[in-house]
This record gives sequence, structure tokens and C-alpha cells, in this order.
Amino acid sequence: MPRLVTSIIMALALLLAACTSGGNGDGPEPPTEESPMPPVELPEDTPALHEIVPAPRATTPDADGNFELTADTEILVGSEKSEAGSAAEYLAELLRPATGFTLPVRQEQRANDELPLVVLDDAADELPTDGYRLEVTPGRVELSASSGGGFFAGVQSLRQLLPADVERDEPVERTWAVAGGTIVDHPRFAYRGAMLDVARHFFEADVVKRHIDRLAQYKINHLHLHLTDDQGWRIEIPGWPRLTEVGAANEVGGGPGGYYTQEEFRDIVTYAADRGITIVPEIDMPGHTNAALASYAELNCDGNATEPYTGTHVGFSSLCIDSDTTYEFAADVISEVAALTPGEFFHIGGDEAEATTDAEYRRFFDRVLPMITDAGKRPVGWHEYAAVDLPESAVVQYWRIEADHPDTSAAASDGNQVIMSPADHSYLDMKYHDSDPWGNSWAGAVSTRAAYEWDPATYLTGVGEEAILGVEAPLWTELVQEESDIERMAFPRTQAVAEVGWTPQESRDWEDFRSRLSAHGERMAAQGIDFHPDPEVDW
Amino acid sequence: MPRLVTSIIMALALLLAACTSGGNGDGPEPPTEESPMPPVELPEDTPALHEIVPAPRATTPDADGNFELTADTEILVGSEKSEAGSAAEYLAELLRPATGFTLPVRQEQRANDELPLVVLDDAADELPTDGYRLEVTPGRVELSASSGGGFFAGVQSLRQLLPADVERDEPVERTWAVAGGTIVDHPRFAYRGAMLDVARHFFEADVVKRHIDRLAQYKINHLHLHLTDDQGWRIEIPGWPRLTEVGAANEVGGGPGGYYTQEEFRDIVTYAADRGITIVPEIDMPGHTNAALASYAELNCDGNATEPYTGTHVGFSSLCIDSDTTYEFAADVISEVAALTPGEFFHIGGDEAEATTDAEYRRFFDRVLPMITDAGKRPVGWHEYAAVDLPESAVVQYWRIEADHPDTSAAASDGNQVIMSPADHSYLDMKYHDSDPWGNSWAGAVSTRAAYEWDPATYLTGVGEEAILGVEAPLWTELVQEESDIERMAFPRTQAVAEVGWTPQESRDWEDFRSRLSAHGERMAAQGIDFHPDPEVDW
Repeated sequence: MPRLVTSIIMALALLLAACTSGGNGDGPEPPTEESPMPPVELPEDTPALHEIVPAPRATTPDADGNFELTADTEILVGSEKSEAGSAAEYLAELLRPATGFTLPVRQEQRANDELPLVVLDDAADELPTDGYRLEVTPGRVELSASSGGGFFAGVQSLRQLLPADVERDEPVERTWAVAGGTIVDHPRFAYRGAMLDVARHFFEADVVKRHIDRLAQYKINHLHLHLTDDQGWRIEIPGWPRLTEVGAANEVGGGPGGYYTQEEFRDIVTYAADRGITIVPEIDMPGHTNAALASYAELNCDGNATEPYTGTHVGFSSLCIDSDTTYEFAADVISEVAALTPGEFFHIGGDEAEATTDAEYRRFFDRVLPMITDAGKRPVGWHEYAAVDLPESAVVQYWRIEADHPDTSAAASDGNQVIMSPADHSYLDMKYHDSDPWGNSWAGAVSTRAAYEWDPATYLTGVGEEAILGVEAPLWTELVQEESDIERMAFPRTQAVAEVGWTPQESRDWEDFRSRLSAHGERMAAQGIDFHPDPEVDW
Repeated sequence: MPRLVTSIIMALALLLAACTSGGNGDGPEPPTEESPMPPVELPEDTPALHEIVPAPRATTPDADGNFELTADTEILVGSEKSEAGSAAEYLAELLRPATGFTLPVRQEQRANDELPLVVLDDAADELPTDGYRLEVTPGRVELSASSGGGFFAGVQSLRQLLPADVERDEPVERTWAVAGGTIVDHPRFAYRGAMLDVARHFFEADVVKRHIDRLAQYKINHLHLHLTDDQGWRIEIPGWPRLTEVGAANEVGGGPGGYYTQEEFRDIVTYAADRGITIVPEIDMPGHTNAALASYAELNCDGNATEPYTGTHVGFSSLCIDSDTTYEFAADVISEVAALTPGEFFHIGGDEAEATTDAEYRRFFDRVLPMITDAGKRPVGWHEYAAVDLPESAVVQYWRIEADHPDTSAAASDGNQVIMSPADHSYLDMKYHDSDPWGNSWAGAVSTRAAYEWDPATYLTGVGEEAILGVEAPLWTELVQEESDIERMAFPRTQAVAEVGWTPQESRDWEDFRSRLSAHGERMAAQGIDFHPDPEVDW
């Protein structure tokens, strides 16, 4: 254990010594053992422990425990887990711009007496998945966890305990304090996801990275990238160059499109991992494949390449089900993309395959799913693929708005896990309110409240708490063209879905969430997020 | 006058001939002289004549006069005014992307019988400044005006009579109709302005151009660019290279800054003129000059260059009032910038010169104002400069929130015109509502309603209707960093101030405006404007 002594205390002690030696006798009392640090006054805008989003499981405030972050603060990594080191570096990067402090990250206790104020250490007991304990005391913040996910989650909680000014990208001269006490926390579901469709409109890697920054703060731990669709193929595949030469050159409305080179994609994956987020790549098959069909004639049953497509209809395209070329293609694509992503999931789409018969659809997945499991990945698919024989590791993602889907409940009975993305609560491409000019509306309006007020474990018949891997908020981009559109549609509904995924149902309450969310307007504005000021919330 | 015959009618006539020759006898009635065109059904989303923003002076709907824009539509320029040609080209550019029509612009009647459906022609009578008459009949839209300003204003009205889809940047297959009838319209004030501060944060020319596109649609006819301030000098001045080498290299918060080359600036001026907007350049003197003072030691009384400044305080800087170098500098800058801008105004700032005495301030303007008039321009200055001896052509811009300003009312009595920009109604950098995370608040919140509900002619004691040149909505950019921030702060308050400037006071009503504005949510969204969905309006 590092000794609880700071250079501030030493300076104070020297000052006191000077005072008392001066014989005045009226100086402040010297520090005693009971009160080793001067008490920290909290600036008015310092959040309380329970105010973070998503709501933490248990908080125990301690008014005597307030902590002040100063230019002398250092971050000490006690854990030997590499993610603890990454989380510590990430914390320092988050806090440096606004505080202007250097916040060095050290792996070892310093030789001198200065205090390492923020410590990331292994939990003494085994915490649940992504669980963490955050103890804020006058001289020390201790973040303990049993896994990388726990460290990243704890870092986000600590960040949110600092005032909104900490989100600015330029130094702000002020007192940086954290309310004292303890948070003990872990999520309801292991998977808290967001999806970005980079196929309908393409977004450059730097836009995706900024989106990752924004998602991570709400403990979103998976970003599903919808990499291919009728309108565009967005990932470089060696051996299939026309996918990106031809298939990437369009987007909805006829814009220039684009794609990620393997190097750019790897960079996104690493960037996300450094923020506690796993990239889930989706290669949508056998439908939603016009971009591939336009690139390679041999993927079409009639041997003719299709025309590039820039509209917004669905359900018209299909790989040729009974052609070996299709499976050579699928095998290459799956092995290449699986090799780019260290995470456990590979999303194979499977939705809206209206140009194939049920039998064709089954034949397709019978051949393709083993490619995914052979690559060491768990397949994920939209719920339509629950109609096929799924391996036990496969995950079903439910996206419709009906309360019954027999194939999905049957899969759940068979032990397959389910990700809940019902469009009427989690689809970020829907309008917030009917009268809004932005967004789709086939699933109705999805207000911030609608994104919040639902229970994943009671939505779908036969799919209860135990069957659920988690929740995901998909952002389809037929109408989303600019980064500001992403921000408008994603925030603040992402916070709502993030809390649905993190906080136990019985601890969630719309009025309480609404009140906590209100303070996040300032935080988001400081980050430059063009969020939608949904009038349901007092910003 | 071109003949009212179209190829459509000809085809219909041929068809009818075929029918009747077939002997059936039950075919539709042949066209008669009273009804020369088939009636045009208006799609539901076609705006009514009175729904445009700013509200027009007089509208006379004619349900039999609906006009359909088709692939055959052409634009004929009857007027010989060059602005009529520019306005016609601009109209075609506005309508082509969404309609997908070629919309050729012709200076002369075609030899064949096809109908030039949109005609821009000189008004038979002399219309008031920027006045126009728009007559929509089944085969023909006639826009007549007596000035360039009238043609550009009429083009914006016609544009707004088409459905919101016309604002999309990709072809939409649909019927494009315009409600029949007549609009006769002219503005209350000659000057309807917006200001963008490119000094506190710099915005590249393409951002300024997009802003011009957005402003023009609401009949804003002046864009005042605040080109210099303590934090940055944004315009290249030959002979004073350090202004841009040193003075442009910063902005609020320490960002990289930037500046416009003379060529870029000329390009902005031309781009604006092609949309009916005059650029008003502001070189703020003698205060707000730290960027210049940091660039040239000799502009400082002590001969030492100041440090670059990236904070947001005001009132600390001044050119050295009694140094001849100051006036060499001012003369060069004024003549260079005046030469770049063909418009009649040159804004010389004059605000918050707290580092000069009153006497110094007077001596400064006594020498500088003649430089502006000698360059053939009318000086404009913030209202503080009403304290000096103003030439008759000088314009005073009032920006405070007090109802009395003796110097300004004295200037008005002397015949100087006034631009009204009271901060509590027209400052776009203020928050919309107190609880918003975006914006300043020294003048209180400026909601859309507050931006709408005021009368420029009764705001300031001694400054009535006759003294007022117009209104302007300034957007200061201490807190505005990105284009989406400009859009959020400017829209929809710009529409409110635009209508204050255009529509007579007695014709204005908040509830009516609110209802018309509501339809502009869709229009702005189609243009990709990240406007603020102020909850005062049902979007």
C-alpha cells in the first residue's frame, strides 16, 4: 500500500511549522491522524455518486471522503491485467485536456512520498462480469475490478463524477473534485451494444472513432458495424478487389461511398478495444448483397453482374445459393474479416432474404455457419436466421416489434442467446416524435422515453432474462448522411438503451433517468455532440 | 408575349383527335379557350401562397391557377438586368437536384411552340425596393421585379411554394406543383442582415458559402463578416503579411485559426452576390485589435508586439491612437478590403474600445472615417461610434439591450440610418432557453419567440421607422466551433429576424409565424441544416 502522504500535506506541515515557530499560536490546527487531508469542498456542479448514467447498482456517499484531482495527481496501475493499463491510459487521456494536468500513469509505486491518487487494482474478491468497485477518499480513488470490462466501466463512472467541464477539449482553470464514497456496480447484461450502418451511407474511420468515444462513456461495450448491404461494400477483402473497386463506390442517393482498408479497419478495432469496446463485424448474407452482386458476375445465378443500387428498397438481392462460387466467396470473406477482429462475435446478417426460398435460405446457412464457428467465432444473425439449425454458440438478434417470434423463442429454448433490438424501443433511425423532420417511421416514433421504458426480458414470448445476452441500439443510415445526423439520432436515446442494458429493471425509473439525463446535456455539449434536445427532458 | 401552348397540350390534342376519330364519343371534353391547360392537382404537401417565410405582403390564391413544373419547363429571362439572369440561373440550380429536370435558362423566347414556363421579367410599374410580383397560372409562372433584389426575393418565394422535397440534393420522383395565384410583396426594411464572427473561431470559405445558401432562402440580403478581433485576423492584406502569418494563427481556445486569401474572399463575395447577398466586411478598430497588435510591434504605443490571445475577454486592446503608423495601417487595410467588396457598406467596428479615452476614440475616427467615405463606402459601426462626428452616410448598428442610447438617437436625428441588433432579440450566440447547454447568456435567453416578438421601430427611444435601415442577427462565435454549431444557433432564429426585417409589423403574429415555421423543419432537414428544434414550435 502506498503511504497516504502528499506534497501538499508536506507543504502545509512546513507552513504550520513556520507559523508555530513564529510563536503566534493562532494558526490552524495541525493535521491529526483522524483527518490526514484538508477537507475538500465540492464545487456546486460536482455530480453526486448516484447521478451517473447508466445508474449504478449501489452507492454509499461519504461527505468526508471528497477527493480533489490536482496537478500532482498520478494514476497507479496495481493490476497486472493489460486492460487495467489500457483503462488507466484512457482515463488519463480523458482527463488531461480539460484539467491541463499531466496525470502520469505508473505501473509501480514511486520511490518518493508523493501520493498516487488514482489506483487501478485487482479486486480482492471476484466481481461479476464487468463489475467494479470505486472508492473515493480524500487522498485516493481506488478502482478495483476483476476484468478489463470492469476497469473500463469504472473509469467511465469516475469520469462522470467530475463536473461537465472535464469534457472540454481545452484547459479550464477550476477546482476538480469528486464526491466521496463508494460505488459497487455491475451490469444486468454482458452485451450493451450499438450498431452503425456504414453501408447505406459510408462514414470515414475518424467519424467511427469519434462515435466510439461517445458510446464508450455510457458503458456500451460492443459496436456492431453493418459493413455490407445492397448499396455498398465497405471492407477490403484480399482476392476480391472488385468488392471495393465497384461495390464500395456508391451509397444511398448516389454519393461517392467508400470503404475501410484492412489497415484502417484494424485501427478502428484497436481504437475501440482501447476504450473497452469490441467491434462486431457484420457481413450481411445471403440477401442485402447487391453491392457484391454488382462487383462479381459469378456471384449471380445468371452470371450477370447487377447494376449498382442507390435506392432504399430491401429484399430484392441474393447470392446464388447453389453455386460453389458463393461459398468460396463466403469462406474468403468470413476468414478475412474474422482475422481482423479479435472479438468473439461474427454477425452474418440473414435478414430480409426475400429473394430466396426457405429451403434455399437453410441450405445457405447450413454451409456458412460452420465457416464462422471454424474461424473460432460465435455467429450472430438477425432473428430470421433462427429458422435454421443454429449451433449452440449462435446468437439471435431480434429486431421486429411483434411480441411473438416462435423461431427465436425456440432458439432460446435450445440455449441460444438473444440480443434484443426491438425497433419500437431501440431503433435509432426512427423519429423521436411523429412531427420531427428527422428519421424513419415504420416502427412509429421512438422517443427517449420509449427507448428507456421497456424490459428486454418481458418483450418477447419465451425469451426471458436468462436467454438474453444483452441489448443493442441499431442506427440504420438511409437518411443519415453526416456525422451530426449520427449524433442527433443516437443521443440521448443511446443513453436510454445503455441504461436498459446495464441497470436492473427494478432500479430503473423514467423520472429518475430523465433528471439524471438532464445534466448530460451540458456534458454532451462540452464534447461537441450535436444531440437531439428531446423536449421530454429539461436540458 | 409567348404563346400559351405546350407540347403536353399538343399531345393531348392529338390524343383527343385520335379518340374522336375512333367514333367512341365518350372521351374527355376537348380543351376550350377558357381552360387551355389540364387542371393541376396539388399534392398535399404543396405549400399555400401565404405559408412562405418571411410572410409576404399580399397573396391572392387562385385554385384554377395551379402550375406544374415538369421536365419540359424552361426558364426565360425577359429582363435585361444582369441580376435577373443571375436570379434565373440561381433558381435553376436550386430546383435541378431534387427535380432532376434540366430547366434550361434562356435569354430569348424559343422559336418553337414549347412554353417557357417560368419567366423573369421587368415589372410594368416601378416596384418598391426589393419588391416583386409572382403570378402563378397553369402554364406559366411570371416573376416581375424592378431590381435585382426583387428578382432574388421572388425566386425564394417561388422555391418555397414547391414542396419540401425540392430541398433534397438527390432526385425525387414526384409531382412538382405550385399553388395558383398572385403574390405582391416588398420588404419593410432595405437591410435584412446576418453576421458571422469568423475571428473568434475561423470558418473556411466553404462553410461560409453553405451558410450563405441557407440565409438567402429567407431573403436575408446582407452578410456581415466580422473579420478581425483580438483572437484572429482573417483576411489577407498585401504589404502587411504578418497579419495573416501571425495574427491568423489562433482562435478562441487555441485552435489553429486561419484566414481568407484575397482570392478566397473575392470568391465568397461573388458567391453571395449570385444569391442576392451583399457581403459587409468588418475590420474592427481601434479596440478588438490584439491580433494586429501581436503581428506588428509598431502598432503598439510601446513598440512591443503583444502576445497572441485565445481567451474571451474584451476591451483590453487598442491600436496606438497618436501614431502615424496606425493610420498608414488603417488606410492600407481599408483600401484593400473596400476594393474586395463591391457593396456600399464598410463596417469599422468601434465597439468596446475600453482601452482608449473618449478623446482618443474621437481622434481615431476623425482620421479613419474619411478613409472609408473616400473609398466610396458608407461607414457602419457599432453604436459606440455614434459618439463621434459621423458623416451623413454613416450607419449606426445598435447592439445593446437598453431602451435609451442618446448618441444613437442623436445620430438618427442627424439623418444617420440605424441597423437594429438588440442583443436580447437578435443575438444568435445567446441560449434559446436558460436551461440549454448551448450559448451565452449575458443578454438572457433569446428564444425563437423572443427573436420574433419585437418591433425595431419602437425599441430605441428616438429611433423610429424612418431612421431604420434594417435589422441584423449577429452570431458571435466564442462558443461556436463547428458548422453544426452555426446551424443550431442561427436556425430558426434567423427566420424570425428575417421576418422582423421583411414583414410589416401589423402583419406579424407569433402564432401565425409559429405555424408557418413548423413546416420549415422538413425543409431545413432536407437541406441538412442542423437547426435547433426549439420546443416552442411543433416541428
